[in-house]
Amino acid sequence: MDVVATAALASAVSDAGGLGLIGGGYGDEAWLRKELSSVPPQTVGCGFITWSADPKLVEIALEHRPSVLFLSFGDAAPYIEPAHERGVPVVCQVHNLEQVRASVDLGADVICVQGGEAGGHGIGGRSTLTLVPETADLLADRAPGTLLLAAGGIADGRALAAVLALGADGALVGTRFWATTEAQAPATAKSIAVTLSGDQTRRTSVYDIVRDKAWPKRYTGRVFDNDFVHKWHGHEDELRANIAAAKQSFQDALADEDYHHANVIVGEAIGLVRSVRSAAEVVSDMANQAERIMRSQTHCPSSATERSNRT
Amino acid sequence: MDVVATAALASAVSDAGGLGLIGGGYGDEAWLRKELSSVPPQTVGCGFITWSADPKLVEIALEHRPSVLFLSFGDAAPYIEPAHERGVPVVCQVHNLEQVRASVDLGADVICVQGGEAGGHGIGGRSTLTLVPETADLLADRAPGTLLLAAGGIADGRALAAVLALGADGALVGTRFWATTEAQAPATAKSIAVTLSGDQTRRTSVYDIVRDKAWPKRYTGRVFDNDFVHKWHGHEDELRANIAAAKQSFQDALADEDYHHANVIVGEAIGLVRSVRSAAEVVSDMANQAERIMRSQTHCPSSATERSNRT
Repeated sequence: MDVVATAALASAVSDAGGLGLIGGGYGDEAWLRKELSSVPPQTVGCGFITWSADPKLVEIALEHRPSVLFLSFGDAAPYIEPAHERGVPVVCQVHNLEQVRASVDLGADVICVQGGEAGGHGIGGRSTLTLVPETADLLADRAPGTLLLAAGGIADGRALAAVLALGADGALVGTRFWATTEAQAPATAKSIAVTLSGDQTRRTSVYDIVRDKAWPKRYTGRVFDNDFVHKWHGHEDELRANIAAAKQSFQDALADEDYHHANVIVGEAIGLVRSVRSAAEVVSDMANQAERIMRSQTHCPSSATERSNRT
Repeated sequence: MDVVATAALASAVSDAGGLGLIGGGYGDEAWLRKELSSVPPQTVGCGFITWSADPKLVEIALEHRPSVLFLSFGDAAPYIEPAHERGVPVVCQVHNLEQVRASVDLGADVICVQGGEAGGHGIGGRSTLTLVPETADLLADRAPGTLLLAAGGIADGRALAAVLALGADGALVGTRFWATTEAQAPATAKSIAVTLSGDQTRRTSVYDIVRDKAWPKRYTGRVFDNDFVHKWHGHEDELRANIAAAKQSFQDALADEDYHHANVIVGEAIGLVRSVRSAAEVVSDMANQAERIMRSQTHCPSSATERSNRT
């Protein structure tokens, strides 16, 4: 969620009963200091793209005592001890079982497994539906005190109920919060995104190439499968050979808010997001829908009987 | 599940309370007649790879009055009316929302959406976790009487509970039944498969190339990511240039039951399959575990309280 997840979004999520995250992303010191300064300590977490993180920025975040330090995409080893020294739990977000094992060995407090259906970067070889229970079994065996979060494809209470059934202790939600009023994404991008089906997303590297983001080779990012992606995905060598013109065209599209060419970073779950709402509404609707489904599935006497959750 | 799903497996599943399917696969008349002849009408279903199906074989299956006609991968149009004339409901298995819409328009009685985590062939662009609820919403709007099955990644009661929460009416289970005593897969292949993690599977076309299977371009198949796949995946042109030697080596591996080179068609959920069991045990364990999870999630008074389903 990078810089889209500002203090305003994170606070709104936490205020509504979730745990919001500030998206430290690739790292911008001024931006990070500003966002952290507007939230009290221990009210929201702070996340980084680990391979690109500046240790100094992680230090700035830790000094602010976030609720959690959230580390994705890379070696979390240098940050575990500094976080623990300040009493800050560490969430390691990983993409396959091999990485789960490594994170357990590092002493992660929480493991967040992200399936390839997620928006933005990841490895993409695993899906949430299989990775969560396989990880739950591994944790039960090797680190039963470690909490498990599920990420990727979770945008409503149906998916929240589903990942809880799979053995997760909670869910990380990106795309649904990207399409909230508080998220710092352009309104034009949001208004296009809420019309998309999950079919209209794709994992690709073309926007990393055109943005000079040196992502390690195994990572791709899921985005709106727009005209720019249609043009260049599968033709990456050609894109590199025409990089100056492609960059110009990308920058122009960004400036024009032309999201058929600029990037819209959303996951498959965008197909379940039909309107831009407030973060508080999203938190409350997800929780209520999940509870309704779980009650209706077992026909608890205290709940209204619902034939199905297609509501 | 192709010819692995014999009448013996299908009957065992149906006898245990599921609905078993005979896997007509690419189509072999003698095999199909033999399998159909050993089950009474309306006790099991029969499936075909639609693009490769011989209409004559589908006719033979329909004459036998299967419980359902299960059609995957291709245009189901020619078979809907003949099936309905015999009172046989048609299940269309599809891989994205575009194909869901087309199947609704054709008059499918049941839509089975399969995520890319599944073993064997598929399109692979969508995951079960997002495709099921997006399809449930589409059906609620356009065809509320059409049943919805979820496929891909479902090997235990956790995933069954999960897809029911997502809005499915039921689940299609492949990999877990492939690793049963009744499935006609070699014991050597099963014994290797139960040691694998879901990380050790991959979608690829290399086995289609070496087996001369003319799958339409958008389809790949998920298999054990073994030495043969390591060698050729991403080097398909080289494989085609060395096809005679590669075919010989593949045939030798099949004959030797060397599954580091021969194909093992399993999905990501193989990581949740730790032993070869009987189909009846699989059906009963899945149903019981799903029920236990659903009860424990809502703390129904009638159920034992379970903190988690990591059992």
